Amino acid sequence: MSGTKTGKLIGVGTGPGDPELLTVKAVRALGDADVVAYFAKAGRNGNGRAVVEGILKPGMTELPLYYPVTTEIDKDHDAYRSQITDFYDASAEAVAAHLLAGRTVAVLSEGDPLFYGSYMHLHVRLAGRFPAVVIPGITAMSGCWSLAGLPLVQGDDVLSVLPGTMGEAELQRRLADTEAAVIMKVGRNLPKIRRALAAAGRLEAAVYVERGTMKNAAMVPLGEKPDDEAPYFSLVLVPGWKDRPGGKDRPGLEGKV
Amino acid sequence: MSGTKTGKLIGVGTGPGDPELLTVKAVRALGDADVVAYFAKAGRNGNGRAVVEGILKPGMTELPLYYPVTTEIDKDHDAYRSQITDFYDASAEAVAAHLLAGRTVAVLSEGDPLFYGSYMHLHVRLAGRFPAVVIPGITAMSGCWSLAGLPLVQGDDVLSVLPGTMGEAELQRRLADTEAAVIMKVGRNLPKIRRALAAAGRLEAAVYVERGTMKNAAMVPLGEKPDDEAPYFSLVLVPGWKDRPGGKDRPGLEGKV
Ligand SMILES: C[S@@+](CC[C@H](N)C(=O)[O-])C[C@H]1O[C@@H](n2cnc3c(N)ncnc32)[C@H](O)[C@@H]1O
Ligand SMILES: C[S@@+](CC[C@H](N)C(=O)[O-])C[C@H]1O[C@@H](n2cnc3c(N)ncnc32)[C@H](O)[C@@H]1O
Repeated sequence: MSGTKTGKLIGVGTGPGDPELLTVKAVRALGDADVVAYFAKAGRNGNGRAVVEGILKPGMTELPLYYPVTTEIDKDHDAYRSQITDFYDASAEAVAAHLLAGRTVAVLSEGDPLFYGSYMHLHVRLAGRFPAVVIPGITAMSGCWSLAGLPLVQGDDVLSVLPGTMGEAELQRRLADTEAAVIMKVGRNLPKIRRALAAAGRLEAAVYVERGTMKNAAMVPLGEKPDDEAPYFSLVLVPGWKDRPGGKDRPGLEGKV
Repeated sequence: MSGTKTGKLIGVGTGPGDPELLTVKAVRALGDADVVAYFAKAGRNGNGRAVVEGILKPGMTELPLYYPVTTEIDKDHDAYRSQITDFYDASAEAVAAHLLAGRTVAVLSEGDPLFYGSYMHLHVRLAGRFPAVVIPGITAMSGCWSLAGLPLVQGDDVLSVLPGTMGEAELQRRLADTEAAVIMKVGRNLPKIRRALAAAGRLEAAVYVERGTMKNAAMVPLGEKPDDEAPYFSLVLVPGWKDRPGGKDRPGLEGKV
Protein backbone atom coordinates (compact mmCIF):
# COMPACT_ATOMS: atom_id res chain seq x y z
CA MET A 1 0.00 0.00 0.00
CA SER A 2 1.75 3.14 -1.20
CA GLY A 3 1.01 6.74 -0.28
CA THR A 4 -0.35 9.36 -2.66
CA LYS A 5 0.39 7.66 -5.96
CA THR A 6 -2.61 6.22 -7.77
CA GLY A 7 -2.89 2.44 -7.63
CA LYS A 8 -3.01 0.05 -10.56
CA LEU A 9 -5.98 -1.92 -11.88
CA ILE A 10 -5.14 -5.49 -12.87
CA GLY A 11 -7.60 -7.80 -14.61
CA VAL A 12 -6.47 -11.30 -13.70
CA GLY A 13 -7.64 -14.29 -15.73
CA THR A 14 -8.17 -17.22 -13.37
CA GLY A 15 -8.67 -19.86 -16.06
CA PRO A 16 -11.41 -22.49 -16.36
CA GLY A 17 -11.27 -23.95 -12.85
CA ASP A 18 -8.07 -25.93 -12.15
CA PRO A 19 -5.90 -23.68 -9.91
CA GLU A 20 -2.76 -25.01 -11.66
CA LEU A 21 -4.01 -23.38 -14.87
CA LEU A 22 -3.29 -19.93 -13.46
CA THR A 23 -0.33 -18.35 -15.21
CA VAL A 24 2.90 -17.60 -13.37
CA LYS A 25 2.14 -13.91 -14.01
CA ALA A 26 -1.32 -14.17 -12.41
CA VAL A 27 0.13 -15.82 -9.29
CA ARG A 28 2.73 -13.08 -9.00
CA ALA A 29 0.15 -10.31 -9.52
CA LEU A 30 -2.07 -11.75 -6.79
CA GLY A 31 0.92 -11.88 -4.44
CA ASP A 32 1.72 -8.22 -5.17
CA ALA A 33 -1.84 -6.85 -5.03
CA ASP A 34 -3.28 -4.92 -2.07
CA VAL A 35 -6.92 -5.72 -2.79
CA VAL A 36 -8.62 -8.60 -4.58
CA ALA A 37 -12.03 -7.84 -6.12
CA TYR A 38 -14.50 -10.21 -7.82
CA PHE A 39 -18.08 -10.36 -9.04
CA ALA A 40 -20.29 -12.94 -7.36
CA LYS A 41 -23.87 -13.86 -6.69
CA ALA A 42 -25.10 -12.71 -3.29
CA GLY A 43 -24.06 -15.15 -0.60
CA ARG A 44 -21.58 -16.94 -2.85
CA ASN A 45 -17.92 -16.39 -3.56
CA GLY A 46 -17.88 -17.15 -7.26
CA ASN A 47 -15.65 -19.50 -9.17
CA GLY A 48 -12.75 -17.10 -9.73
CA ARG A 49 -12.41 -16.65 -5.97
CA ALA A 50 -12.53 -20.44 -5.42
CA VAL A 51 -9.72 -20.95 -7.93
CA VAL A 52 -7.33 -18.63 -6.04
CA GLU A 53 -8.30 -19.89 -2.56
CA GLY A 54 -4.91 -21.50 -1.95
CA ILE A 55 -2.95 -18.52 -3.29
CA LEU A 56 -4.28 -15.37 -1.60
CA LYS A 57 -2.20 -13.94 1.21
CA PRO A 58 -3.89 -14.42 4.61
CA GLY A 59 -5.73 -11.28 5.65
CA MET A 60 -5.72 -9.76 2.18
CA THR A 61 -8.38 -7.09 1.64
CA GLU A 62 -11.26 -8.54 -0.36
CA LEU A 63 -13.86 -6.58 -2.31
CA PRO A 64 -16.71 -8.88 -3.34
CA LEU A 65 -19.06 -7.21 -5.84
CA TYR A 66 -22.46 -8.85 -5.42
CA TYR A 67 -24.84 -8.83 -8.38
CA PRO A 68 -28.28 -7.45 -7.61
CA VAL A 69 -30.97 -10.13 -7.68
CA THR A 70 -31.87 -9.98 -11.36
CA THR A 71 -32.90 -13.47 -12.39
CA GLU A 72 -36.58 -12.53 -12.05
CA ILE A 73 -36.33 -9.82 -14.71
CA ASP A 74 -36.02 -10.50 -18.45
CA LYS A 75 -32.55 -9.63 -19.72
CA ASP A 76 -33.88 -7.54 -22.60
CA HIS A 77 -36.07 -5.59 -20.24
CA ASP A 78 -35.16 -1.92 -19.63
CA ALA A 79 -35.42 -2.40 -15.86
CA TYR A 80 -32.73 -5.10 -15.99
CA ARG A 81 -30.48 -2.99 -18.17
CA SER A 82 -30.67 0.03 -15.93
CA GLN A 83 -30.26 -1.99 -12.72
CA ILE A 84 -27.20 -3.81 -14.03
CA THR A 85 -25.68 -0.61 -15.46
CA ASP A 86 -26.08 1.09 -12.08
CA PHE A 87 -24.47 -1.93 -10.43
CA TYR A 88 -21.42 -1.81 -12.74
CA ASP A 89 -21.11 1.95 -12.21
CA ALA A 90 -21.19 1.51 -8.42
CA SER A 91 -18.75 -1.42 -8.60
CA ALA A 92 -16.33 0.69 -10.63
CA GLU A 93 -16.52 3.46 -8.03
CA ALA A 94 -15.84 0.98 -5.21
CA VAL A 95 -12.72 -0.18 -7.06
CA ALA A 96 -11.77 3.44 -7.89
CA ALA A 97 -11.79 4.35 -4.20
CA HIS A 98 -9.01 1.84 -3.57
CA LEU A 99 -7.09 2.98 -6.66
CA LEU A 100 -7.31 6.63 -5.56
CA ALA A 101 -5.89 5.58 -2.19
CA GLY A 102 -2.87 4.16 -4.00
CA ARG A 103 -3.80 0.49 -3.72
CA THR A 104 -3.26 -2.07 -6.47
CA VAL A 105 -6.52 -3.89 -7.15
CA ALA A 106 -6.53 -7.33 -8.75
CA VAL A 107 -9.92 -8.16 -10.27
CA LEU A 108 -10.49 -11.88 -10.67
CA SER A 109 -12.10 -12.97 -13.92
CA GLU A 110 -12.97 -16.57 -14.83
CA GLY A 111 -11.20 -17.80 -17.93
CA ASP A 112 -9.80 -14.87 -19.89
CA PRO A 113 -10.89 -11.39 -18.71
CA LEU A 114 -11.57 -9.81 -22.13
CA PHE A 115 -13.36 -12.87 -23.57
CA TYR A 116 -16.98 -12.61 -22.36
CA GLY A 117 -15.60 -11.74 -18.89
CA SER A 118 -17.31 -9.60 -16.25
CA TYR A 119 -14.04 -7.72 -15.66
CA MET A 120 -14.65 -5.86 -18.94
CA HIS A 121 -17.38 -3.80 -17.28
CA LEU A 122 -14.81 -2.39 -14.85
CA HIS A 123 -12.14 -2.05 -17.51
CA VAL A 124 -14.20 0.19 -19.81
CA ARG A 125 -15.12 2.41 -16.86
CA LEU A 126 -11.67 2.68 -15.27
CA ALA A 127 -8.91 2.09 -17.83
CA GLY A 128 -9.07 5.70 -19.02
CA ARG A 129 -8.65 7.06 -15.48
CA PHE A 130 -6.11 4.68 -13.95
CA PRO A 131 -3.16 2.58 -15.10
CA ALA A 132 -4.69 -0.75 -16.12
CA VAL A 133 -3.16 -4.02 -17.25
CA VAL A 134 -4.83 -7.29 -18.18
CA ILE A 135 -3.29 -10.70 -17.54
CA PRO A 136 -4.79 -13.19 -19.99
CA GLY A 137 -6.23 -16.46 -18.70
CA ILE A 138 -6.79 -19.91 -20.14
CA THR A 139 -10.27 -19.72 -21.68
CA ALA A 140 -12.96 -22.24 -20.75
CA MET A 141 -12.92 -23.57 -24.32
CA SER A 142 -9.13 -24.20 -24.26
CA GLY A 143 -9.50 -25.98 -20.91
CA CYS A 144 -12.32 -28.14 -22.29
CA TRP A 145 -10.76 -29.20 -25.60
CA SER A 146 -7.46 -29.93 -23.83
CA LEU A 147 -9.26 -32.12 -21.28
CA ALA A 148 -10.99 -33.94 -24.13
CA GLY A 149 -7.73 -34.22 -26.09
CA LEU A 150 -9.67 -32.91 -29.07
CA PRO A 151 -7.72 -31.01 -31.77
CA LEU A 152 -10.07 -28.13 -32.50
CA VAL A 153 -8.72 -26.20 -35.47
CA GLN A 154 -5.90 -26.91 -37.90
CA GLY A 155 -4.44 -25.29 -40.99
CA ASP A 156 -6.95 -22.95 -42.62
CA ASP A 157 -10.00 -23.92 -40.51
CA VAL A 158 -12.46 -21.21 -39.44
CA LEU A 159 -13.54 -21.29 -35.78
CA SER A 160 -16.91 -19.80 -34.79
CA VAL A 161 -17.58 -19.10 -31.13
CA LEU A 162 -21.36 -19.03 -30.75
CA PRO A 163 -23.45 -18.15 -27.69
CA GLY A 164 -26.12 -20.82 -27.13
CA THR A 165 -28.54 -17.98 -26.50
CA MET A 166 -28.96 -17.15 -30.20
CA GLY A 167 -31.99 -18.16 -32.26
CA GLU A 168 -32.21 -21.73 -33.53
CA ALA A 169 -32.24 -20.91 -37.27
CA GLU A 170 -29.28 -18.55 -36.88
CA LEU A 171 -27.34 -21.15 -34.85
CA GLN A 172 -28.01 -23.80 -37.50
CA ARG A 173 -26.91 -21.47 -40.28
CA ARG A 174 -23.65 -20.63 -38.54
CA LEU A 175 -22.91 -24.26 -37.63
CA ALA A 176 -23.31 -25.24 -41.29
CA ASP A 177 -20.96 -22.40 -42.34
CA THR A 178 -17.84 -23.15 -40.26
CA GLU A 179 -15.20 -25.84 -39.94
CA ALA A 180 -15.14 -25.76 -36.13
CA ALA A 181 -17.39 -24.28 -33.48
CA VAL A 182 -17.58 -23.71 -29.75
CA ILE A 183 -21.04 -23.16 -28.27
CA MET A 184 -20.91 -21.24 -24.98
CA LYS A 185 -23.75 -20.54 -22.52
CA VAL A 186 -25.35 -23.94 -22.88
CA GLY A 187 -27.51 -24.41 -19.75
CA ARG A 188 -31.20 -24.29 -20.64
CA ASN A 189 -30.35 -23.87 -24.34
CA LEU A 190 -29.21 -27.48 -24.75
CA PRO A 191 -32.35 -28.88 -26.48
CA LYS A 192 -32.20 -26.06 -29.03
CA ILE A 193 -28.44 -26.53 -29.51
CA ARG A 194 -28.95 -30.24 -30.12
CA ARG A 195 -31.60 -29.57 -32.78
CA ALA A 196 -29.49 -26.95 -34.54
CA LEU A 197 -26.45 -29.27 -34.58
CA ALA A 198 -28.52 -32.14 -35.98
CA ALA A 199 -30.06 -29.92 -38.66
CA ALA A 200 -26.59 -28.67 -39.64
CA GLY A 201 -25.27 -32.24 -39.81
CA ARG A 202 -22.79 -31.63 -36.99
CA LEU A 203 -24.32 -33.49 -34.03
CA GLU A 204 -22.23 -36.61 -34.51
CA ALA A 205 -18.93 -34.79 -34.01
CA ALA A 206 -20.09 -32.61 -31.09
CA VAL A 207 -18.64 -33.12 -27.62
CA TYR A 208 -20.34 -31.79 -24.49
CA VAL A 209 -18.09 -30.75 -21.56
CA GLU A 210 -19.25 -29.55 -18.15
CA ARG A 211 -17.13 -28.01 -15.40
CA GLY A 212 -14.05 -28.56 -17.59
CA THR A 213 -10.81 -28.86 -15.51
CA MET A 214 -12.75 -28.57 -12.24
CA LYS A 215 -12.74 -31.52 -9.80
CA ASN A 216 -16.18 -32.72 -10.92
CA ALA A 217 -15.59 -32.31 -14.66
CA ALA A 218 -17.50 -34.57 -17.06
CA MET A 219 -17.73 -34.99 -20.83
CA VAL A 220 -19.59 -37.09 -23.36
CA PRO A 221 -20.25 -37.04 -27.10
CA LEU A 222 -23.38 -34.89 -27.22
CA GLY A 223 -25.24 -37.49 -29.31
CA GLU A 224 -24.81 -39.98 -26.44
CA LYS A 225 -25.85 -37.65 -23.61
CA PRO A 226 -29.10 -39.14 -22.28
CA ASP A 227 -30.61 -35.97 -20.79
CA ASP A 228 -30.79 -32.23 -21.39
CA GLU A 229 -29.42 -31.18 -18.00
CA ALA A 230 -26.52 -28.72 -18.27
CA PRO A 231 -25.02 -26.56 -15.54
CA TYR A 232 -23.87 -22.96 -16.04
CA PHE A 233 -20.30 -24.16 -16.57
CA SER A 234 -20.81 -26.19 -19.74
CA LEU A 235 -20.06 -25.85 -23.44
CA VAL A 236 -20.15 -27.81 -26.68
CA LEU A 237 -17.15 -28.40 -28.95
CA VAL A 238 -17.42 -29.13 -32.67
CA PRO A 239 -13.93 -29.98 -33.96
CA GLY A 240 -12.58 -29.04 -37.38
CA TRP A 241 -9.58 -30.66 -39.14
CA LYS A 242 -11.76 -32.73 -41.44
CA ASP A 243 -9.01 -34.85 -42.99
CA ARG A 244 -7.00 -35.51 -39.86
CA PRO A 245 -5.16 -38.85 -39.73
CA GLY A 246 -7.39 -41.42 -38.01
CA GLY A 247 -10.13 -38.80 -37.79
CA LYS A 248 -12.93 -41.33 -37.79
CA ASP A 249 -11.75 -42.82 -34.50
CA ARG A 250 -11.69 -39.43 -32.78
CA PRO A 251 -8.14 -39.90 -31.47
CA GLY A 252 -7.54 -38.71 -27.97
CA LEU A 253 -11.08 -39.30 -26.79
CA GLU A 254 -10.37 -42.98 -26.04
CA GLY A 255 -11.26 -43.77 -22.45
CA LYS A 256 -12.10 -40.14 -21.82
CA VAL A 257 -15.66 -39.51 -22.97
CA MET B 1 13.33 -42.24 -16.25
CA SER B 2 11.45 -45.41 -15.30
CA GLY B 3 12.11 -48.96 -16.49
CA THR B 4 9.68 -51.00 -18.51
CA LYS B 5 6.50 -48.92 -18.08
CA THR B 6 5.45 -46.85 -21.05
CA GLY B 7 6.10 -43.12 -20.76
CA LYS B 8 3.56 -40.34 -21.02
CA LEU B 9 3.07 -37.83 -23.85
CA ILE B 10 2.37 -34.28 -22.68
CA GLY B 11 1.43 -31.47 -25.05
CA VAL B 12 2.52 -28.30 -23.29
CA GLY B 13 1.11 -24.93 -24.33
CA THR B 14 3.86 -22.33 -24.02
CA GLY B 15 1.65 -19.28 -24.58
CA PRO B 16 2.19 -16.30 -26.90
CA GLY B 17 5.76 -15.39 -25.96
CA ASP B 18 6.09 -13.96 -22.44
CA PRO B 19 7.60 -16.75 -20.27
CA GLU B 20 5.45 -15.56 -17.33
CA LEU B 21 2.37 -16.55 -19.32
CA LEU B 22 3.21 -20.23 -18.89
CA THR B 23 0.73 -21.88 -16.53
CA VAL B 24 1.82 -23.28 -13.18
CA LYS B 25 0.90 -26.72 -14.57
CA ALA B 26 3.14 -26.28 -17.62
CA VAL B 27 6.10 -25.28 -15.43
CA ARG B 28 5.57 -28.34 -13.24
CA ALA B 29 5.22 -30.67 -16.25
CA LEU B 30 8.47 -29.38 -17.74
CA GLY B 31 10.19 -29.95 -14.40
CA ASP B 32 8.92 -33.54 -14.28
CA ALA B 33 9.55 -34.48 -17.93
CA ASP B 34 12.47 -36.63 -19.10
CA VAL B 35 12.56 -35.31 -22.65
CA VAL B 36 11.48 -32.02 -24.20
CA ALA B 37 10.53 -32.12 -27.90
CA TYR B 38 9.65 -29.27 -30.26
CA PHE B 39 9.15 -28.50 -33.92
CA ALA B 40 11.53 -25.96 -35.42
CA LYS B 41 12.98 -24.74 -38.66
CA ALA B 42 16.40 -26.22 -39.44
CA GLY B 43 19.12 -24.35 -37.59
CA ARG B 44 16.65 -22.53 -35.32
CA ASN B 45 15.17 -23.40 -31.97
CA GLY B 46 11.63 -22.10 -32.44
CA ASN B 47 9.65 -19.78 -30.25
CA GLY B 48 8.27 -22.42 -27.86
CA ARG B 49 11.84 -23.44 -26.97
CA ALA B 50 12.84 -19.78 -26.44
CA VAL B 51 9.92 -19.25 -24.06
CA VAL B 52 11.03 -22.10 -21.75
CA GLU B 53 14.76 -21.24 -21.90
CA GLY B 54 14.89 -20.18 -18.25
CA ILE B 55 12.88 -23.14 -17.02
CA LEU B 56 14.40 -26.31 -18.49
CA LYS B 57 16.59 -28.38 -16.20
CA PRO B 58 20.26 -28.20 -17.20
CA GLY B 59 21.24 -31.23 -19.25
CA MET B 60 17.66 -32.22 -20.07
CA THR B 61 17.33 -34.43 -23.13
CA GLU B 62 16.09 -32.37 -26.08
CA LEU B 63 14.46 -33.70 -29.23
CA PRO B 64 14.25 -30.94 -31.84
CA LEU B 65 12.08 -31.96 -34.79
CA TYR B 66 13.34 -30.00 -37.80
CA TYR B 67 10.91 -29.30 -40.62
CA PRO B 68 12.16 -30.36 -44.04
CA VAL B 69 12.92 -27.42 -46.31
CA THR B 70 9.51 -26.94 -47.90
CA THR B 71 9.08 -23.24 -48.56
CA GLU B 72 10.02 -23.75 -52.21
CA ILE B 73 7.04 -26.07 -52.82
CA ASP B 74 3.43 -24.90 -53.06
CA LYS B 75 1.44 -25.97 -49.99
CA ASP B 76 -1.36 -27.45 -52.11
CA HIS B 77 1.13 -29.45 -54.13
CA ASP B 78 1.09 -33.25 -53.66
CA ALA B 79 4.85 -33.30 -53.16
CA TYR B 80 4.55 -30.92 -50.20
CA ARG B 81 1.73 -32.95 -48.67
CA SER B 82 3.58 -36.22 -48.89
CA GLN B 83 6.88 -34.75 -47.66
CA ILE B 84 5.23 -33.13 -44.64
CA THR B 85 3.16 -36.25 -43.84
CA ASP B 86 6.32 -38.35 -43.91
CA PHE B 87 7.99 -35.82 -41.63
CA TYR B 88 5.14 -35.97 -39.07
CA ASP B 89 5.16 -39.77 -39.22
CA ALA B 90 8.91 -39.89 -38.60
CA SER B 91 8.63 -37.28 -35.81
CA ALA B 92 5.93 -39.34 -34.10
CA GLU B 93 8.18 -42.41 -34.26
CA ALA B 94 11.09 -40.46 -32.76
CA VAL B 95 8.84 -39.44 -29.86
CA ALA B 96 7.41 -42.98 -29.60
CA ALA B 97 10.91 -44.41 -29.14
CA HIS B 98 11.30 -42.36 -25.94
CA LEU B 99 7.79 -43.28 -24.75
CA LEU B 100 8.46 -46.99 -25.31
CA ALA B 101 11.62 -46.63 -23.22
CA GLY B 102 9.44 -45.33 -20.37
CA ARG B 103 10.32 -41.66 -20.70
CA THR B 104 7.85 -38.82 -20.26
CA VAL B 105 8.03 -36.54 -23.29
CA ALA B 106 6.85 -32.90 -23.06
CA VAL B 107 6.13 -31.47 -26.51
CA LEU B 108 6.29 -27.67 -26.60
CA SER B 109 3.56 -25.94 -28.56
CA GLU B 110 3.28 -22.17 -29.03
CA GLY B 111 0.07 -20.72 -27.67
CA ASP B 112 -2.47 -23.49 -27.07
CA PRO B 113 -1.52 -26.94 -28.44
CA LEU B 114 -4.91 -27.91 -29.91
CA PHE B 115 -5.62 -24.49 -31.45
CA TYR B 116 -3.77 -24.49 -34.80
CA GLY B 117 -0.77 -26.02 -32.99
CA SER B 118 1.87 -28.28 -34.51
CA TYR B 119 1.60 -30.62 -31.50
CA MET B 120 -1.71 -31.89 -32.92
CA HIS B 121 0.18 -33.83 -35.60
CA LEU B 122 1.90 -35.88 -32.90
CA HIS B 123 -1.25 -36.16 -30.78
CA VAL B 124 -3.36 -37.77 -33.50
CA ARG B 125 -0.58 -40.26 -34.24
CA LEU B 126 0.29 -41.18 -30.65
CA ALA B 127 -2.66 -40.56 -28.30
CA GLY B 128 -4.23 -43.93 -29.19
CA ARG B 129 -1.01 -45.83 -28.38
CA PHE B 130 0.28 -43.99 -25.30
CA PRO B 131 -1.13 -42.12 -22.30
CA ALA B 132 -1.46 -38.52 -23.48
CA VAL B 133 -2.44 -35.33 -21.72
CA VAL B 134 -2.65 -31.78 -23.04
CA ILE B 135 -1.90 -28.71 -20.92
CA PRO B 136 -3.71 -25.72 -22.44
CA GLY B 137 -1.78 -22.53 -23.15
CA ILE B 138 -2.67 -18.87 -23.45
CA THR B 139 -3.53 -18.40 -27.13
CA ALA B 140 -1.81 -15.74 -29.22
CA MET B 141 -5.13 -13.92 -29.60
CA SER B 142 -5.71 -13.76 -25.81
CA GLY B 143 -2.17 -12.47 -25.33
CA CYS B 144 -2.71 -9.81 -28.00
CA TRP B 145 -6.12 -8.47 -26.90
CA SER B 146 -4.92 -8.40 -23.28
CA LEU B 147 -1.83 -6.42 -24.27
CA ALA B 148 -4.08 -3.99 -26.17
CA GLY B 149 -6.58 -3.84 -23.28
CA LEU B 150 -9.26 -4.46 -25.90
CA PRO B 151 -12.49 -6.16 -24.74
CA LEU B 152 -13.10 -8.61 -27.57
CA VAL B 153 -16.49 -10.24 -27.03
CA GLN B 154 -19.31 -9.52 -24.60
CA GLY B 155 -22.79 -10.85 -23.96
CA ASP B 156 -24.17 -12.61 -27.02
CA ASP B 157 -21.42 -11.60 -29.47
CA VAL B 158 -20.25 -14.10 -32.08
CA LEU B 159 -16.48 -14.42 -32.51
CA SER B 160 -15.04 -15.62 -35.83
CA VAL B 161 -11.43 -16.76 -35.96
CA LEU B 162 -10.36 -16.44 -39.58
CA PRO B 163 -7.09 -17.49 -41.21
CA GLY B 164 -5.72 -14.64 -43.33
CA THR B 165 -4.99 -17.22 -46.01
CA MET B 166 -8.62 -17.44 -47.15
CA GLY B 167 -9.92 -15.80 -50.32
CA GLU B 168 -10.68 -12.08 -50.23
CA ALA B 169 -14.43 -12.34 -51.02
CA GLU B 170 -14.88 -15.07 -48.41
CA LEU B 171 -12.96 -13.05 -45.83
CA GLN B 172 -15.09 -9.98 -46.52
CA ARG B 173 -18.31 -11.99 -46.27
CA ARG B 174 -17.33 -13.46 -42.91
CA LEU B 175 -16.14 -10.11 -41.52
CA ALA B 176 -19.51 -8.58 -42.38
CA ASP B 177 -21.33 -11.48 -40.69
CA THR B 178 -19.78 -11.42 -37.19
CA GLU B 179 -19.66 -9.14 -34.17
CA ALA B 180 -15.96 -9.79 -33.46
CA ALA B 181 -13.12 -11.36 -35.43
CA VAL B 182 -9.52 -12.43 -35.05
CA ILE B 183 -7.50 -12.79 -38.24
CA MET B 184 -4.55 -15.14 -37.82
CA LYS B 185 -1.71 -15.87 -40.27
CA VAL B 186 -1.35 -12.29 -41.40
CA GLY B 187 2.17 -12.03 -42.89
CA ARG B 188 2.00 -11.58 -46.67
CA ASN B 189 -1.82 -11.54 -46.55
CA LEU B 190 -1.99 -8.07 -44.98
CA PRO B 191 -2.91 -6.07 -48.14
CA LYS B 192 -5.78 -8.49 -48.84
CA ILE B 193 -6.90 -8.40 -45.18
CA ARG B 194 -6.94 -4.62 -45.26
CA ARG B 195 -9.11 -4.56 -48.39
CA ALA B 196 -11.55 -7.14 -46.99
CA LEU B 197 -11.88 -5.21 -43.72
CA ALA B 198 -12.51 -1.95 -45.56
CA ALA B 199 -15.12 -3.55 -47.85
CA ALA B 200 -16.87 -5.06 -44.81
CA GLY B 201 -16.86 -1.68 -43.04
CA ARG B 202 -14.64 -2.99 -40.23
CA LEU B 203 -11.25 -1.41 -40.95
CA GLU B 204 -11.73 1.49 -38.54
CA ALA B 205 -12.08 -0.78 -35.50
CA ALA B 206 -9.29 -3.20 -36.45
CA VAL B 207 -6.11 -3.38 -34.36
CA TYR B 208 -2.90 -4.93 -35.66
CA VAL B 209 -0.60 -6.65 -33.13
CA GLU B 210 2.80 -8.18 -33.85
CA ARG B 211 4.89 -10.37 -31.53
CA GLY B 212 2.24 -9.87 -28.83
CA THR B 213 3.69 -10.27 -25.26
CA MET B 214 7.22 -10.79 -26.64
CA LYS B 215 9.94 -8.24 -25.79
CA ASN B 216 9.65 -6.49 -29.15
CA ALA B 217 5.83 -6.42 -29.28
CA ALA B 218 4.13 -3.64 -31.23
CA MET B 219 0.57 -2.63 -32.04
CA VAL B 220 -1.29 0.00 -33.99
CA PRO B 221 -4.82 0.59 -35.28
CA LEU B 222 -4.60 -1.13 -38.66
CA GLY B 223 -5.97 1.94 -40.45
CA GLU B 224 -2.96 3.92 -39.19
CA LYS B 225 -0.29 1.35 -40.04
CA PRO B 226 1.80 3.00 -42.79
CA ASP B 227 3.15 -0.15 -44.44
CA ASP B 228 2.16 -3.72 -45.28
CA GLU B 229 5.07 -5.40 -43.49
CA ALA B 230 3.94 -8.09 -41.07
CA PRO B 231 6.08 -10.80 -39.45
CA TYR B 232 4.92 -14.40 -38.94
CA PHE B 233 3.88 -13.58 -35.37
CA SER B 234 1.14 -11.08 -36.12
CA LEU B 235 -2.65 -10.97 -36.08
CA VAL B 236 -5.55 -8.55 -36.45
CA LEU B 237 -8.26 -8.00 -33.81
CA VAL B 238 -11.75 -6.71 -34.61
CA PRO B 239 -13.56 -6.11 -31.31
CA GLY B 240 -17.26 -6.70 -30.71
CA TRP B 241 -19.34 -5.21 -27.87
CA LYS B 242 -20.93 -2.57 -30.11
CA ASP B 243 -22.72 -0.62 -27.35
CA ARG B 244 -19.96 -0.66 -24.76
CA PRO B 245 -19.76 2.38 -22.48
CA GLY B 246 -17.33 4.89 -24.01
CA GLY B 247 -16.92 2.60 -27.00
CA LYS B 248 -16.04 5.37 -29.42
CA ASP B 249 -12.90 6.24 -27.47
CA ARG B 250 -11.63 2.66 -27.63
CA PRO B 251 -11.02 2.47 -23.87
CA GLY B 252 -7.83 0.79 -22.83
CA LEU B 253 -5.99 1.62 -26.02
CA GLU B 254 -4.97 5.05 -24.68
CA GLY B 255 -1.21 5.41 -24.79
CA LYS B 256 -0.85 1.84 -25.97
CA VAL B 257 -1.34 1.84 -29.71
C1 LIG C 1 -19.60 -15.40 -19.22
S1 LIG C 1 -18.80 -16.68 -20.06
C2 LIG C 1 -17.14 -16.49 -19.43
C3 LIG C 1 -16.08 -17.02 -20.36
C4 LIG C 1 -14.67 -16.90 -19.79
N1 LIG C 1 -14.27 -15.52 -19.58
C5 LIG C 1 -13.66 -17.60 -20.70
O1 LIG C 1 -12.61 -17.02 -20.96
O2 LIG C 1 -13.91 -18.73 -21.12
C6 LIG C 1 -19.41 -18.08 -19.20
C7 LIG C 1 -19.51 -19.33 -20.08
O3 LIG C 1 -18.24 -19.95 -20.16
C8 LIG C 1 -18.38 -21.35 -20.23
N2 LIG C 1 -17.57 -21.94 -19.15
C9 LIG C 1 -16.86 -21.28 -18.21
N3 LIG C 1 -16.14 -22.12 -17.47
C10 LIG C 1 -16.38 -23.38 -17.93
C11 LIG C 1 -15.91 -24.68 -17.59
N4 LIG C 1 -15.03 -24.85 -16.59
N5 LIG C 1 -16.38 -25.74 -18.30
C12 LIG C 1 -17.26 -25.56 -19.31
N6 LIG C 1 -17.72 -24.34 -19.68
C13 LIG C 1 -17.29 -23.27 -19.01
C14 LIG C 1 -19.86 -21.68 -20.12
O4 LIG C 1 -20.36 -21.90 -21.43
C15 LIG C 1 -20.42 -20.41 -19.54
O5 LIG C 1 -21.74 -20.19 -19.97
C1 LIG D 1 0.12 -21.88 -36.45
S1 LIG D 1 -0.72 -20.57 -35.58
C2 LIG D 1 -0.43 -21.08 -33.91
C3 LIG D 1 -1.47 -20.54 -32.94
C4 LIG D 1 -1.21 -20.91 -31.51
N1 LIG D 1 -1.24 -22.35 -31.29
C5 LIG D 1 -2.20 -20.22 -30.56
O1 LIG D 1 -2.74 -20.89 -29.65
O2 LIG D 1 -2.43 -19.05 -30.71
C6 LIG D 1 0.40 -19.24 -35.84
C7 LIG D 1 -0.28 -17.89 -35.90
O3 LIG D 1 -0.53 -17.43 -34.59
C8 LIG D 1 -0.39 -16.02 -34.54
N2 LIG D 1 0.57 -15.69 -33.45
C9 LIG D 1 1.26 -16.58 -32.71
N3 LIG D 1 1.97 -15.94 -31.75
C10 LIG D 1 1.70 -14.62 -31.89
C11 LIG D 1 2.11 -13.45 -31.18
N4 LIG D 1 2.93 -13.53 -30.12
N5 LIG D 1 1.63 -12.25 -31.60
C12 LIG D 1 0.79 -12.17 -32.66
N6 LIG D 1 0.37 -13.25 -33.35
C13 LIG D 1 0.82 -14.46 -32.98
C14 LIG D 1 0.03 -15.54 -35.91
O4 LIG D 1 -1.12 -15.08 -36.58
C15 LIG D 1 0.55 -16.80 -36.55
O5 LIG D 1 0.34 -16.81 -37.94
